[in-house]
Amino acid sequence: MNQEYYVIGADFGTDSVRSVIINAGNGREIAASVFYYPRWKQQRYCNASRHQYRQHPADYLEGIETSIKDCIRQAGADIASRIKAISVDTTGSTPVAVDATGTPLCYIPGLEENPNALFVLWKDHTSTAEAEAINRHAEKYDINYLQFVGGIYSSEWFWAKLLHILREDEAIRKHIYSFVEHCDWIPFVLTGGKDASQLKRGVCSAGHKALYAAEFGGLPPDHFFSELDPLLKGFTERLFTRTYTTAEAAGTISAEWATRLGLPADVQIGIGAFDCHMGAVGGQIEPYYLSKVMGTSTCDILVAPQADMKDKLVKGICGQVDGSVIPGMIGLEAGQSAFGDAYAWFRNLLSWPLQFITDETQREAISQQLIAKLSEAAAALPLTENDELALDWLNGRRTPDANQLVQGAFTGLHLGTDAPRMFKALVEATCFGAKAITDRFIEEGIPVKGLIALGGVARKSPYVMQTMADVMNMPIRVHSSEQTCAAGAAMFAATVAGLYPAVEDAMQAMGQGFDIEYKPIRKNVAYYKKKFKRYKKLGAFAAK
Amino acid sequence: MNQEYYVIGADFGTDSVRSVIINAGNGREIAASVFYYPRWKQQRYCNASRHQYRQHPADYLEGIETSIKDCIRQAGADIASRIKAISVDTTGSTPVAVDATGTPLCYIPGLEENPNALFVLWKDHTSTAEAEAINRHAEKYDINYLQFVGGIYSSEWFWAKLLHILREDEAIRKHIYSFVEHCDWIPFVLTGGKDASQLKRGVCSAGHKALYAAEFGGLPPDHFFSELDPLLKGFTERLFTRTYTTAEAAGTISAEWATRLGLPADVQIGIGAFDCHMGAVGGQIEPYYLSKVMGTSTCDILVAPQADMKDKLVKGICGQVDGSVIPGMIGLEAGQSAFGDAYAWFRNLLSWPLQFITDETQREAISQQLIAKLSEAAAALPLTENDELALDWLNGRRTPDANQLVQGAFTGLHLGTDAPRMFKALVEATCFGAKAITDRFIEEGIPVKGLIALGGVARKSPYVMQTMADVMNMPIRVHSSEQTCAAGAAMFAATVAGLYPAVEDAMQAMGQGFDIEYKPIRKNVAYYKKKFKRYKKLGAFAAK
Repeated sequence: MNQEYYVIGADFGTDSVRSVIINAGNGREIAASVFYYPRWKQQRYCNASRHQYRQHPADYLEGIETSIKDCIRQAGADIASRIKAISVDTTGSTPVAVDATGTPLCYIPGLEENPNALFVLWKDHTSTAEAEAINRHAEKYDINYLQFVGGIYSSEWFWAKLLHILREDEAIRKHIYSFVEHCDWIPFVLTGGKDASQLKRGVCSAGHKALYAAEFGGLPPDHFFSELDPLLKGFTERLFTRTYTTAEAAGTISAEWATRLGLPADVQIGIGAFDCHMGAVGGQIEPYYLSKVMGTSTCDILVAPQADMKDKLVKGICGQVDGSVIPGMIGLEAGQSAFGDAYAWFRNLLSWPLQFITDETQREAISQQLIAKLSEAAAALPLTENDELALDWLNGRRTPDANQLVQGAFTGLHLGTDAPRMFKALVEATCFGAKAITDRFIEEGIPVKGLIALGGVARKSPYVMQTMADVMNMPIRVHSSEQTCAAGAAMFAATVAGLYPAVEDAMQAMGQGFDIEYKPIRKNVAYYKKKFKRYKKLGAFAAK
Repeated sequence: MNQEYYVIGADFGTDSVRSVIINAGNGREIAASVFYYPRWKQQRYCNASRHQYRQHPADYLEGIETSIKDCIRQAGADIASRIKAISVDTTGSTPVAVDATGTPLCYIPGLEENPNALFVLWKDHTSTAEAEAINRHAEKYDINYLQFVGGIYSSEWFWAKLLHILREDEAIRKHIYSFVEHCDWIPFVLTGGKDASQLKRGVCSAGHKALYAAEFGGLPPDHFFSELDPLLKGFTERLFTRTYTTAEAAGTISAEWATRLGLPADVQIGIGAFDCHMGAVGGQIEPYYLSKVMGTSTCDILVAPQADMKDKLVKGICGQVDGSVIPGMIGLEAGQSAFGDAYAWFRNLLSWPLQFITDETQREAISQQLIAKLSEAAAALPLTENDELALDWLNGRRTPDANQLVQGAFTGLHLGTDAPRMFKALVEATCFGAKAITDRFIEEGIPVKGLIALGGVARKSPYVMQTMADVMNMPIRVHSSEQTCAAGAAMFAATVAGLYPAVEDAMQAMGQGFDIEYKPIRKNVAYYKKKFKRYKKLGAFAAK
């Protein structure tokens, strides 16, 4: 029946936004369009040596307009007239300072080029000192306000970023009214919001990054923040007291945006959430299956029924939030800071001699096939006791137990060690890093029945995936959709539009299913069980 | 006065033999010729996966004949008629099983292709189990027979190799009469030796590898060996009871060899020794200066006056032998298993992608300049606290405290780590490995006043040498001779010929001096002092 209707999912990634039009009945993709952020591409407002990464709202607004219009052009007017809702997901925590009208401060004359007036991208690490201050400060209170974010606050998150720009920048202090996540700001804009105090916040971003919890009656009290730094005084009141799930609407599209995009005036705009949370839904998550979005880093999502989770707290993960993925379930988030990035690092390392090739085409051709060739060679290696071992913390460790100071390592190197042997060790290390996360869940009383793999690495690297199955001693299903985040957003849009009673029903009807499964190979499991012990030892040494 | 006379030095390396004719008065090189071992080049009799490396005596005999004849051809008949002596140095421990006539067993019909009937090259590691057995066995005796070889017997040495081929090979057990080092066998051949029981042994090989010591009255007693394995019964009697220094003659050249080479009938043949021992003399060693031959591995030699060394035993080095370098002095030997080899390993690692270049010339051109380019880039890096760290044990650890099971490592790796940063860490690690050796000498009461650097890396790598000076906090003089081993052999030949009363006089007259000196840079010294502590910690972890 719902096949008469269509929905839009828009997935804001780090480099681009991808919009899709999807049939609300069967989940088939009708049109897709990707828009790369032009200002970001030039790395304007960024400073890699300071780990400063900022994004301009105009990149986002041009992106959603261009990509949705392009989709509509592909799909045609008839389909466009039957579009019922739009939901979006974004990276996070990626907040921006706004004035009382909800306008990012970069639109205030004089602040156009001020990086602190822009969105502070998830991977910006300028707030390390502020995160540390929050962690020390939290110890002083009887209530542990960090209990739902794994016990450690990260420099990548909302409050650390807010405190950092407040401390650093008088202009921001003067003009800021509130602080808004990217995933909450887009629905606010699309619904024509003009008052920041009315801006609806999703429970996903609020719970995972801003310390919101029903158990606290909302955010931690104002004095918690003002005692940390008077600069934070009054923010909690202006931020929010209630939150919404992604099954709820932020509102109806504004007339201005309906006209601009060529959409019906009654299109519903869903509450937004973070990418891997919607990706987990697009990848058809089930309770107690760990959904791993495997790209540059990993984002791991597990959902557990509320009833099972009473008084259960998982230490050292990124957070556990009621309804952050699926209403009625606790969404638990974890992840690895470097996954595909570890392989890319090794490719770049090995590509150093290629600078002496003068022909750029030849150079690129060799570099681009390296990971595939290394995977082939590594897969052919025997699994030998006491062979090369690596530690995957090349970008620090996100979970378990966030620590941005730890680093990568190799041991067991000898004159016979070549590039495939080191690559093998590195792949194993990224899988051991994944195992450390599932082990933590299990130790804390959360069973993990299997893995659902999503994202680029999952579909492109059979060697990595088989190693993962062997290290985890768990079956892994790979979702057939290449774009689970946008697909998940579309499922939420269909729910928000009232086409399904619950997102689980949308998942079942619209899900594209799994097309590959990796099963653990028994003899490899035994090898990796032993080798994982060596990995833990090396990790304990490196973390000292 | 001695400028009327000439001497020959012949240096048997791992891949080739180099002969030189040198003016006995001023040390100038008149002619030089290198011969690469043809059978070795094909790696016949070798098995890299078993670490089995064997060399055929015909490679040596063809080599010395061809290279000396070539030198004489270059120098002319007049100079040839004024050649007074030949001395040789070889790798070691590189022994061969011989019959009662001193003939290697591969000349016995039926054993021509038997690897156990050939010279067992220094780097052959097939005797690991036997070395371990010797170490365990030695603990049972009141007298510590390993006290002059640093307390640990190595699989690279004489008795372990003898026991291994005896255990493994019935044919060898049947035919073997004695076991002879390469450096002792060549003088035996050149002097026309026909009786293995009369074969003169140099104190260098006897003391450093065969457990000979005046303090024991010769070799350890026969029961020490027969209680380890009855297969060894009777060997000590047939081997030797006295030894000779390299200032002594093995005898006069045989008529057959004089004719064959075109040399005077009265040419004296010196007692042979290991390469780096003669190299230290060629490099004008002084008491308490550590002479480092820096190539693939390092061989470190220090000499100390007998009087200073009474009852002094240095633990964990390769050995201390009275007269092994200079008569009247104790020669102490140490070394690093991988030095230039560590850099070559890294170059090979980085060269993996070059296999995808189809043009071999282009491939080779890039690969061959890599170490120089990496050195340039590494030298330009800042010395930053907590940067990348490496462990240089890629080929195990020779000294201090031999351990062939330890391996190489890297820590402190992050997404910004590139090839020059890893190369910097590796160069530093090889220098830290060198520092661990001098530290051991100093801890054991042997002062080290400075370094004398010899060999390929010393002359070709200013970056490595400056790092070495900074890590060591010691000045380093680089000897101007490219071939100090052959030069040292020539100095001994001049001494053996009676042209100088002692080798020290030959050194002074014939030495070519130093042409480069590296001095420690104060601020680097402070950095490396801190970083060395991290190296020691990593080493302690990796050795566990």
